[in-house]
Parts: sequence; structure tokens; C-alpha cells
Amino acid sequence: MANLDPALRAWRLLLGPARVLTSSTDLAPYMASTAASPVAPLAVLRPLSHGEVVAIVRSAGEFDIPLYPLSTGRNWGYGDANPSGAGQVILDLGGMNRILETDRELAYAVIEPGVTQAQLAGHLAEQQLPLWMDCTGAGPDTSLVGNILERGFGHTPYGNRMLHVAGMRIVLASGDTLETGFAHFAHASAAYLYPYGVGPWLDGLFTQSNFGIVTSLGLWLMPQTEVVSHMVASVAGFGAIAAVVDALRPLRMDGTLSSVVHIGNDLRVLSGGMVFPAAQLPQGPPLPPQLRAEFCRQAGIGAWTVSAALYGRPAQVADARRTLRAAIGRLATLRFIDEKMLALGRLAGRWLGQGKLGTRISAQVNLGQSLLNMNRGIPDGRFLAGAYWRRRGGLPPEFPRGANPARDGCGMMWLAPVLPLRGRDLLHVHSLVEPLFATHGFDLFETFSMVNERALGGVLTICFDQEDAVETARARLCYQAAFERLKGAGYIPYRVGPQSMKALDSGHDTYWGTVARIKDALDPQHIIAPGRYQPR
Amino acid sequence: MANLDPALRAWRLLLGPARVLTSSTDLAPYMASTAASPVAPLAVLRPLSHGEVVAIVRSAGEFDIPLYPLSTGRNWGYGDANPSGAGQVILDLGGMNRILETDRELAYAVIEPGVTQAQLAGHLAEQQLPLWMDCTGAGPDTSLVGNILERGFGHTPYGNRMLHVAGMRIVLASGDTLETGFAHFAHASAAYLYPYGVGPWLDGLFTQSNFGIVTSLGLWLMPQTEVVSHMVASVAGFGAIAAVVDALRPLRMDGTLSSVVHIGNDLRVLSGGMVFPAAQLPQGPPLPPQLRAEFCRQAGIGAWTVSAALYGRPAQVADARRTLRAAIGRLATLRFIDEKMLALGRLAGRWLGQGKLGTRISAQVNLGQSLLNMNRGIPDGRFLAGAYWRRRGGLPPEFPRGANPARDGCGMMWLAPVLPLRGRDLLHVHSLVEPLFATHGFDLFETFSMVNERALGGVLTICFDQEDAVETARARLCYQAAFERLKGAGYIPYRVGPQSMKALDSGHDTYWGTVARIKDALDPQHIIAPGRYQPR
Repeated sequence: MANLDPALRAWRLLLGPARVLTSSTDLAPYMASTAASPVAPLAVLRPLSHGEVVAIVRSAGEFDIPLYPLSTGRNWGYGDANPSGAGQVILDLGGMNRILETDRELAYAVIEPGVTQAQLAGHLAEQQLPLWMDCTGAGPDTSLVGNILERGFGHTPYGNRMLHVAGMRIVLASGDTLETGFAHFAHASAAYLYPYGVGPWLDGLFTQSNFGIVTSLGLWLMPQTEVVSHMVASVAGFGAIAAVVDALRPLRMDGTLSSVVHIGNDLRVLSGGMVFPAAQLPQGPPLPPQLRAEFCRQAGIGAWTVSAALYGRPAQVADARRTLRAAIGRLATLRFIDEKMLALGRLAGRWLGQGKLGTRISAQVNLGQSLLNMNRGIPDGRFLAGAYWRRRGGLPPEFPRGANPARDGCGMMWLAPVLPLRGRDLLHVHSLVEPLFATHGFDLFETFSMVNERALGGVLTICFDQEDAVETARARLCYQAAFERLKGAGYIPYRVGPQSMKALDSGHDTYWGTVARIKDALDPQHIIAPGRYQPR
Repeated sequence: MANLDPALRAWRLLLGPARVLTSSTDLAPYMASTAASPVAPLAVLRPLSHGEVVAIVRSAGEFDIPLYPLSTGRNWGYGDANPSGAGQVILDLGGMNRILETDRELAYAVIEPGVTQAQLAGHLAEQQLPLWMDCTGAGPDTSLVGNILERGFGHTPYGNRMLHVAGMRIVLASGDTLETGFAHFAHASAAYLYPYGVGPWLDGLFTQSNFGIVTSLGLWLMPQTEVVSHMVASVAGFGAIAAVVDALRPLRMDGTLSSVVHIGNDLRVLSGGMVFPAAQLPQGPPLPPQLRAEFCRQAGIGAWTVSAALYGRPAQVADARRTLRAAIGRLATLRFIDEKMLALGRLAGRWLGQGKLGTRISAQVNLGQSLLNMNRGIPDGRFLAGAYWRRRGGLPPEFPRGANPARDGCGMMWLAPVLPLRGRDLLHVHSLVEPLFATHGFDLFETFSMVNERALGGVLTICFDQEDAVETARARLCYQAAFERLKGAGYIPYRVGPQSMKALDSGHDTYWGTVARIKDALDPQHIIAPGRYQPR
């Protein structure tokens, strides 16, 4: 690219040489790919302010060099930190990590893209603000803004994250700054309190798109409640989950279950505590049925585990527990974890000491604590363990500290079909993909999350050994087959990695044509992340 | 307009002559204006199907004649059925009033723009679906889709209406059909269950805008609950409302108050039961303070009335009542209305007969029933009474049947500032507008609604006598002064009438520039509602 050198000179002048990365050592982390398909950036720029982003975008337009913005670059399983194509310069916003404002009374924060889950959680604790953020299982070092713009979901009543955002600040390809909602009016009192503003509501445009670069947004926070109780319901029989889903749907709709409810299959839960026993099974996955059953028996895991958090005053939570027992008590084994119970467990663990039972109880208490923490917006890296299922080295010694599945060479692809919140759809999706995973020789990890009151967001993971070229090729085939089969059956993904963006477009779909027209209007040079959620 | 005659010929061929209106008698109802500023359409077209809309839009492009779409044309106080400017043909979608689908299990309906509140409520009752829709106070004949696209709000937990929509079908200016969310994928199972789809979320673009014509959408419905209880809290002292707002905010945030909470001042409540006593006060408004106080005393109305609905199982509602009493019991007089209480009241009314007390009790019971009905999505025209405050003839004899403030010549303008959900902001907004209403000689009707967990949507009404040219001119001045003062103080409106659309743009605001660029991309000829929420 002829323009690259003069562009780099200009950017070095703007940012200083230390924040313009070009050496292969510096670029390597950005190329790490859970999909085993690294894409090399031309360079990496690390701006520290909105103004620097504006200047970079303007010059990128002049030099006609596309930019690929990322927050902290931890979009694992969906493209990681890779640009959407070759010939792009990464705009790494990780250094823009200021918490610009918090409001105790109205319960929100204004944050930049580099703010991580751990950082905001720590800030709230430090400032003793009686507020919780929503948190995903992707660990402490991930970006809140990045996940929101990918329309990720979390674990709390604020887990439908798109609904808890107001007032975005965006750099357009022209270099102009767009503020959404009321934020573009002088002195607007409700800039971060009312998302829509007046006139067309534009926020949705800047999620799963390449229309602009969000440099800050208002994030609503949840006022702390007196009680949090984490429900874990174990469903023994595979087919029984359908009745459980149907019994929980009315409770999700009426707010008894105000948080995002997660349903994991046995392998999903198992993979949180172990990796594939490669020494024992050198032929690789899938886990033979007897062994799988044995592991589940040992760990006390049913075919499905339903996980949800209850919030409120003591009377509300007690009522919710009663209601849940009445709804699914005969279909599942229910446990409720709260701080009192954990304290008791901790005592028992200490009393029993280092013996087998004591160790097991301590492990259970630690897991319960992690779950309860996540319900209160305190992230935990342990929930990333599943990504390491087929990694040759297993979990890194320092895990979960600094866990990074891409850098650690984990092989992982995610399928994320959305389905009606109905038991029969869950079983149908399973029946569609299960034979494909079996044929291709992979363990099938399944989560179905009640992302809103009417839909399940499925996350099906293919874990593979990146060091095995054949297994990697099989993983791609398995992914492709499952993707097409699900889409053909009307189970469309809520989110995709770069490998599937083109496949979203049938070629005669006005939706993608409209997306292309908006792109041409806002970014005629296609400077920002060309191809990202933009099949035409 | 030279092209009009050939266009009309084409449209008559397409729709038949009866659905192409051009006579002044036929056009008159569309010109009726609560703002006393009628705008004449060139003609009115009444399509009955999506296909007809497509054909009309295509031909409008060919003939270069702008179309102004409306649902049922009852956007009272915000432009009524008037086009956004002269030289436009109205596209009246009122005849497209099919309920295309309802789903009992997943609780939604798919409706066209002509579907009215009464129609959907009637359909749900007829089909014995255990679902309630959200309902506004604008009466039985108003369009659900029209209100949603204007981002109106209602009275139930689904009152933040934008959050309960998925899957729009839109005719673009090109004549192409855009389906949003997952609806554009073949056989999508979650087309009406998950709004975002995959890729940029476009729904917000088609609200408060002129980018396309929505011909149907999926509307989420609320599963019926065992108990509904309507809270009416009367706050005696004017300033005490601030503490009430601040005490209710945490309960709105934690879901104890899951519905939209409405706070009305004394005049707002009074105007539901009487019109301005013009015979007694020929000099016109405002109502003298002593008389106002006397009316309030007679009707038992405090300075402010807070109105909210509680939903759930008996234990949940009982807990919510207790919590509300604890929070504001010392600041306000609380009453809870439920079906049991109304049955008792009805008995008492019958027993007391036609005497003064009996009549008063019956009136109270009827009002209570209307409120409870509205909480369950059954619309009631009585809440339109306020619009008739300055109408010379008072309420029409058949009121509330067929109430139509525009056709009935009511003079009314609405100011709709959004403010932080804080007592001090409510008082501040009041203090900004109160002197202006006094100076211009108008009664100040105020409602502040907790449209979400962090913001109040204010609705301040100027009622004026349209037959009095001087009062009408004063109303305009008062509106303008209040609009500017509120905006200057950072209280930006959530919605405006055509008179204020230009005033939303400072001239150097990237937001409106972006809106203009999207307009040019999607509708380069400006065929659809030019000028509507489009100041540039």
C-alpha cells in the first residue's frame, strides 16, 4: 500500500512513535485467532482521546486507508482482535479507558471503550456506589462498550445490554462527532437518561455495524438490592428440559425471573471444571458416552443446568423462590445460593479440612461465590475455562488470571442461533446440530439463554485443537454445516464471526441493500471496518 | 402541481375512485388542527394493503409528488392529521387494519397501522387470549402503530412502547420492502421475538422520522396477571411532590413500580371532570386561584395526584403496597383501587341511590373502573376530556363516544420536555413555565410520567379557544416562549408538533446532518413526508 508510509509518518507525529505499532512482535497479539484464521493488520494505532480518534479518522480518509476499531480486542470466538480483512490498520481504543462520570442517584456511568469489566466493578466498589453493573462470563479484562456494540448479553436484570445504554458519542468517517439521544443538545439534562432523544433513534445503527466509532456511551447501572439469590436447577433427563423451559417462560415474562436465565448442557458445565482428557483419549473427541456419564455422575451434573439470579427485598425473593419451586420443583432439583449459605459452606469446608469432602465443599463454595459475584457485576475469569477444552496444554498455570483464549491458542467457534423461548425449539435446535457434531467428531457444548422474555439465545461451541490441522479443518466443516442447517430451519444467529458475514445475505434482501446504502451515505470511502456486518 | 392530475388518474386506476379523495368535504377532516394551523393536502389515498402502498410509493416517485403517511391521523396536539407541509398527498393507512397474527404462548400480535386500541383490545377479549396490550389515554379510536412510531408511551409495564416491538415491515421510497430484525430471513422463527436481528439494528430509524412507511409490526403483549391494583396518591402541598418523586424513584428502578407512573397537577385532574367555567368567567383563563382551590376542595383533589398500577400475584402486589406505603405514606394520601373495591362501591352507590352522595360514589366507581381498565389495556375516551377545556361548546353531548379534539375544534398545544427523574427537576421545570403561562393568561396543565426508570416525560398543555383569534395568537406566543425556555435550560422535548421541528436544529449539529444524509440515501427525491423530524 503506497500510502501507508506517509500515513504512518503522520500518525507518529500525531501520537508519538510508541503508540503506532508496526513490528511483527507488536502486531502478533492482534493476529491471534480462536478460529485459526489470523488476519494481519498493517499497523496498530493506540489513541488516548476522542480528539485523537477524530484526527486519525480524518487522515485515514486522506490516505485512503481503512481502519478497524476495537475496544479491548477480546471478541473471542467471533473474530477476536482480527481486522475484518487484509489491508486494514487497527484502531485499538483500549487506552481510552476513562470512566467519565458516575451518578449515584440516577444510576449510570459514562465510559470509554477501553473500560473493562473489572475496572468499572472496581470503581463502583472503591467509590462505594450502591450500584451493580451487568457482567458477562468473558472475564475481567473484556470491554463493556465492545460487548454492547456486539449486542452481547450478561447475567443480571440489565443483561439485555442494548436496553441499558443512552447517549453515544461517535466519530463518523467524515471526522464529525455525532452525539445520539439528547446528548447533542446543549446542557441536555437527560442526555444519559432517555435513549431515544427526539427525531430518529440512531443508537441501533452503531451496533453490529461499521458506520462509526463509538468513543463513549452512557451505561445504566442497577441499584443494589437487599438480597441476591442464585438459583441452580439441575435437570436429570435430557428431554425434561422442554417442560422446564415452558414452565419458566411465564415467570420470565412476569418478571419473577428478571435476570437473563442460562441453561447449559452437561458438557457446558463439565468444561468449567476440566479439559478434555487427552492423555486417556489420544484419538480425540467426542467424549465417549460412558465416560461422559461417569464425569457427570462424579461432579453431580444433570443433563441440563438452569442458572438464574433472583433480586429484591427478602419478601420478594422468598416469593420468587416459592413460585419457582412450584413451577419446576418436580422437574428439577433446585438449589438456591446466597451469602448466608456460602458462609456456612465455608465453615464446613474449614472444619472438614483438606480431605476429599472438605476439598469438594470448598470448591463448591468457591464456584457459588463466583456465581453470586457475577450476579452483582463482579467478573470472574473462571467462566472462560470451557474455551480451553481442546488446548494441548490445558489451562495455563496462572488461570484464570489474565486468561486470553486467543493468545493461549484455544480453538473455538461459536454458533449463536436465536429461537423462540419454547422447550420444543430448544430440543429442535439440539436435534439439528447434534448429528453434525457427532459426524464431525466434536463435543457439543450448548447454552440457551433467556436473553429477553420471548427468545432464547443459543451458544453452541465447537472446541478444537488448533495444533491439529485435520481437526481444525473438521471444525470448520462442522461449523459451516451447522450454520447452514440452523439458518435453513429459521434459527438465525444473533451474532457471527467474520467467516459468516457474507453468508447472512441471500443477495436479494432489501435489509442488506439498505445497510449498504447507509454505509455509502455515512462512509462513502469505506474507511471504517469494511465488510464488518456488511456483506455487500 | 402539473403532475397531480396524471398521478390522480393513475391512483384512481389502482385504488378505484372511492379511495382517492379530492373534494374539499373529503379533505376537511384531514385539515382539522388542534393548533389552529390547518395544512391542506392535495388529495388523500386510502390503500388497503402493503402491495397498494408499494405501488403508490413507486408512482409517487415517478410523478414526484410527496406522500404524507398517517395511521389513523389522531396525532392530536402534535400535528393531528396534517401533512408536514403544503403540496403533499396524504397516504391514509387507516384502512389497513388487519391483526395479522396473535400468539398466545409467546404473547405478541402482528398488526397493521390502522388497528386501533379498541380493536386490538376487543380482539384479545373475543379470542379469550390471556394477554393485555398497553394502552394510552388517547382513546379507543387511535392507532397503536402510529403512536409507537411517534414514540408515545402508555400506562402499563409495556408502556415504554419502543421496547415492545419486533419485526417491522417497511416500504422504502424506492418501493422496496424492508423487513427488520430477523423478519427478512426465510422462515425466521424469532421474527417477532427478538428485535435486533443480526447486523445493524434499524428499527429506531423508522420512529420519529420520514425514512419509510411502516405497514406492519410485531407488538408484544403482556400476559395477564392475577391481580391489578391501581394506586392513586394525593399530595396536598405543591412542593411536597419533590420528596414523593425522590421516594418513588428507587421503587421505579427496582421494579416495584413496573408500570409507567403518571403525576398530574390539580388542573390536569380537574380538567378530566369539567371544562373552563366560561359563563362565570367571561374574561377567560387563567382560573383565579381562589376558584381553583374551591374546585379542588369540592372534588377532593390535592396539588398533585400520582397514579400507578401494580401487577402480579397477590403476595407480590401486597408487598408492593406495603413498600409504597412505607415510602410515601407520610407524604401523600394513598388509595388502592381493585375490582373488589369497585364492586363494594357499586353496591354502596346503588344503595344510596340518586342522592348527592350516591351520585358522587357512582362517579368515583366509574372513574376507578376506567383507570383499572386502562391498566389492562382497555382504552377509554374519557381521558380526552382535558382537550375540551377551552372549547366554547364544552364536551360534545355524545362524549366520550367518538371524541376527536381536532374535529371538535379544541385548541391545544403540548410541550413535552424530558427531565431527570428527580423531584428538583420537576419543580424546576414548573418554575420555568409557570410565569410564562401566567403572563400569557393560560391555565397550566402538567403531567410528569416516569417513562423509564431514570426520566420523567413532561406533558404541559396550553388549552385555548380556537374561535378567539387573540387567545390563539397568545397561545402560540406562550408555546414558543415555553419551548425556548425549556430547551435553553436543557429540558429537550421527546416529541414535537410540526411548528417546532426546525427549532430542534441549531444549524451546526452533526445529529441533524446525519439524519439528512440518511434521508438522502434512502429517499433522494424526498417523497416521504418531507420536513417531518427533518429540519435540514
